Amino acid sequence: MTASVPEGWREVPTPPSLFRRFQFDSYRDTRAFLERLAGLSQETGLYPDLGFGTTHVNVTLYGQAGQAPGADEVDFASRASALAMPG
Amino acid sequence: MTASVPEGWREVPTPPSLFRRFQFDSYRDTRAFLERLAGLSQETGLYPDLGFGTTHVNVTLYGQAGQAPGADEVDFASRASALAMPG
Repeated sequence: MTASVPEGWREVPTPPSLFRRFQFDSYRDTRAFLERLAGLSQETGLYPDLGFGTTHVNVTLYGQAGQAPGADEVDFASRASALAMPG
Repeated sequence: MTASVPEGWREVPTPPSLFRRFQFDSYRDTRAFLERLAGLSQETGLYPDLGFGTTHVNVTLYGQAGQAPGADEVDFASRASALAMPG
């Protein structure tokens, strides 16, 4: 890792990835977060694996081209966390 | 199970659920399918666990109230398969 892991995220060793589970109060909030994440993916070109149910979203960020997560993924993680904040 | 498992779906014993992985040619197709699934959830009141990347969607349907999947889930599965078809 070239930068420190953002708060709330976990560095997973195998396969190398960054992981965070986001919890929401409603399905509506969950869907809104997924929409914002899709916009962030479109802007950055980074497409994490996403798992979701009615009130949670699991985000797994792998590195690019088989590499471990780097500065781009750390930046994505920070921005994803900001997108999950209410308001 | 009160009805037979729709083609392409797998009955998972633990925890009791119906599972299918859908593969798509593009992120756009993947997103379109997720949108249609959201509509189906709104209509039926059934919210499967969904996992997705750029070109796949994994759907896991649990039963309601801790039960094994039943007729409602089988119906949802059939309709989800139809929604994944191109055109």
